[in-house]
Amino acid sequence: MTRLPFTKMHGLGNNYIYVDRVTYTEPLPPYSELAKKVSNQNTGIGSDGLILILPSEVADVKMRIFNSDGSEAKNCGNGLRCVAKYAFEHGLVKEEHFSIETISGKVEAKVFPTDGGVDKVTIDMGEPILERERIPMTGGKPVETVIQETHIIEGQAYQITGVSMGNPHGIFLVENIHNIPINEIGPKLADGHDLFPEGTNVGFVEVLSDSELHYRVWERGSGITQACGTGACAAVVASILEGRLRKDELITVHLAGGDLQIEWDNASNHVWMTGAAVTICDGIFFL
Amino acid sequence: MTRLPFTKMHGLGNNYIYVDRVTYTEPLPPYSELAKKVSNQNTGIGSDGLILILPSEVADVKMRIFNSDGSEAKNCGNGLRCVAKYAFEHGLVKEEHFSIETISGKVEAKVFPTDGGVDKVTIDMGEPILERERIPMTGGKPVETVIQETHIIEGQAYQITGVSMGNPHGIFLVENIHNIPINEIGPKLADGHDLFPEGTNVGFVEVLSDSELHYRVWERGSGITQACGTGACAAVVASILEGRLRKDELITVHLAGGDLQIEWDNASNHVWMTGAAVTICDGIFFL
Repeated sequence: MTRLPFTKMHGLGNNYIYVDRVTYTEPLPPYSELAKKVSNQNTGIGSDGLILILPSEVADVKMRIFNSDGSEAKNCGNGLRCVAKYAFEHGLVKEEHFSIETISGKVEAKVFPTDGGVDKVTIDMGEPILERERIPMTGGKPVETVIQETHIIEGQAYQITGVSMGNPHGIFLVENIHNIPINEIGPKLADGHDLFPEGTNVGFVEVLSDSELHYRVWERGSGITQACGTGACAAVVASILEGRLRKDELITVHLAGGDLQIEWDNASNHVWMTGAAVTICDGIFFL
Repeated sequence: MTRLPFTKMHGLGNNYIYVDRVTYTEPLPPYSELAKKVSNQNTGIGSDGLILILPSEVADVKMRIFNSDGSEAKNCGNGLRCVAKYAFEHGLVKEEHFSIETISGKVEAKVFPTDGGVDKVTIDMGEPILERERIPMTGGKPVETVIQETHIIEGQAYQITGVSMGNPHGIFLVENIHNIPINEIGPKLADGHDLFPEGTNVGFVEVLSDSELHYRVWERGSGITQACGTGACAAVVASILEGRLRKDELITVHLAGGDLQIEWDNASNHVWMTGAAVTICDGIFFL
C-alpha cells in the first residue's frame, strides 16, 4: 500500500488535493487516474481535483492541474495562489517573489508572509486580450475591441464587453446584480451561441464604487460557481474599458466564495490578482 | 490554531470524518458546529458527517454521529463498521468481539483482523420489528405483520412488506429490479403517504438465488443512495417473510456502493450484517 502525503487547500472555496512532487518522489499511478481517486467524494478525500507541485527547468516550480474527471486543466487562479503559499511555506522557493510554470505559460507570484505563514498571494494574470478574433468573438472587424456592443438575447437587448484572460469572458455591467436572470442568460451564451464560437464564461458586474464591484459568473462547462479568478480580472478590465473604473487602482471584487483584489497595471498592461489561500488539512492518503 | 487529528473512512461509499475522543481529549467546538466545518466540500475535508469515538460507561466504546447539516443521527450501519475497525486497530478495545454504545442503544460488533488490519466487520443489527403499529404503518390490525399487502400507488397495484430495523422500510419484491420506476414510487411513499405516518425508506428487491439478492433504495429524506445498511437487513427479512429465502442462511446483498452479507439468525431472532470498512486517509485538520 502506498502512503501518499497530501495537503488539501482552497482559494475562495475552490479546493484541490496538493501533492508535492519536489519532496515526494516515489512512483505514483498516472496523475489522471490519481486525480479521479483522490477527488471522489465518497471513496476518496474529496476535491475539485488534484494539483501536482513539480520541479521546473524554466521557473522556480511547476504546477499541473487535473480535474476530478481526470482531464488536465490549463490554469486556475485559485490553484496558483495555493501553490505559491505551499512552495514558500515548505521552502521549495526562498524568495517572496518567484515564478510558476503552467502548461499555458509561466506566471509570476508574490507571497506576503506573516508569523503564521502565508495568507495572501498575488499572481500576475498577464495581459488581457481584447481583439475580437482573439477573444474569440464573431461579427464586426477582427482586430477591434468589443465594448458595450448591443445584442438581443432571448428577446431582450443587452450591452456586452468581450475580454479574454487566456479564456473568453462576456461581461455585462448591470444596475442591480440581484435582478439578473443569470440561470437563463448564462447557458444561452456559454455554450454554442453564434457570438462566441468557442463558448464563453458569462459575467455580471455591478460597480459599487471607485474601488469595489460585485461579480457573479456562469462558467462555461460548470454553470454558476463560487469564484472564478480570470472572471474577476475580466470584470475589472471590462469596467475600466467602459469608463466606470480606472487603471492603476486596486479594485475589490466580491464573489460568492469571497473577495479578490484586482489591479490593471498601466505600465506593464498586466492584471494582478491578490487573494487568500487556505490550508484545510495535511494528511496521508492510503492508495 | 487547533490541530485536530482525524481519520476519514467509508463503508460502501458512506463516508465520515472520525475523531478519536478516547485519545484526543483537547477542547473542541460543539460537535454540531464541528460537523458542518469538517464536512463542507469546499472549505472542509468533505464528508457525509462527523463521527466521534468516545469512552463509554456501559459498552467498550461509544459513538455519536453528526450529519453534515449539524443534526445528530441515531444510528448508521456503515459508520458502526468503521468505528469497530478503528477501535480495534488503534487498541481502544482488546477483544475481537466487543460492544458499541449509540444513542439508540448498545450494539455488538465482531472484527476479522488480518495482517493488514481489519477489512471486514460484523454488526448485530438487532431484532426486526414486524407489528404494523410499531413499523409504523396504518390500516389493518395494529399487531399483525404486513406481508405482501396490495396497495395502489400511482394507479398501479404493488405488493408491499413492512419491516422496521429501528427505522421503517417498505419493501417490494420485483421480477426485474432494472425496470422499476424508483424515482416515481420512491418519493410518493417516502414522505407524507397515508400508509407510513412517519415516512419510510422504499426498497426494491430482486431475489437472484437462495443466497443472493439485488437491492435498490430510495431513502427517506435523502432519495437514491449508494447503500443503506438497515435497508439491506430489511430486504433480507422481507424476502424470508415472503418465503423466498431462509433464516440461518448467509445472504449476499448487492447494493450500488458494494456488497453486504446479511443473516437473520433463528435462535436469537437478530439480524447480523457483515461488510467492508475502509480507511481513506489520516490527517490533521487546521481548525
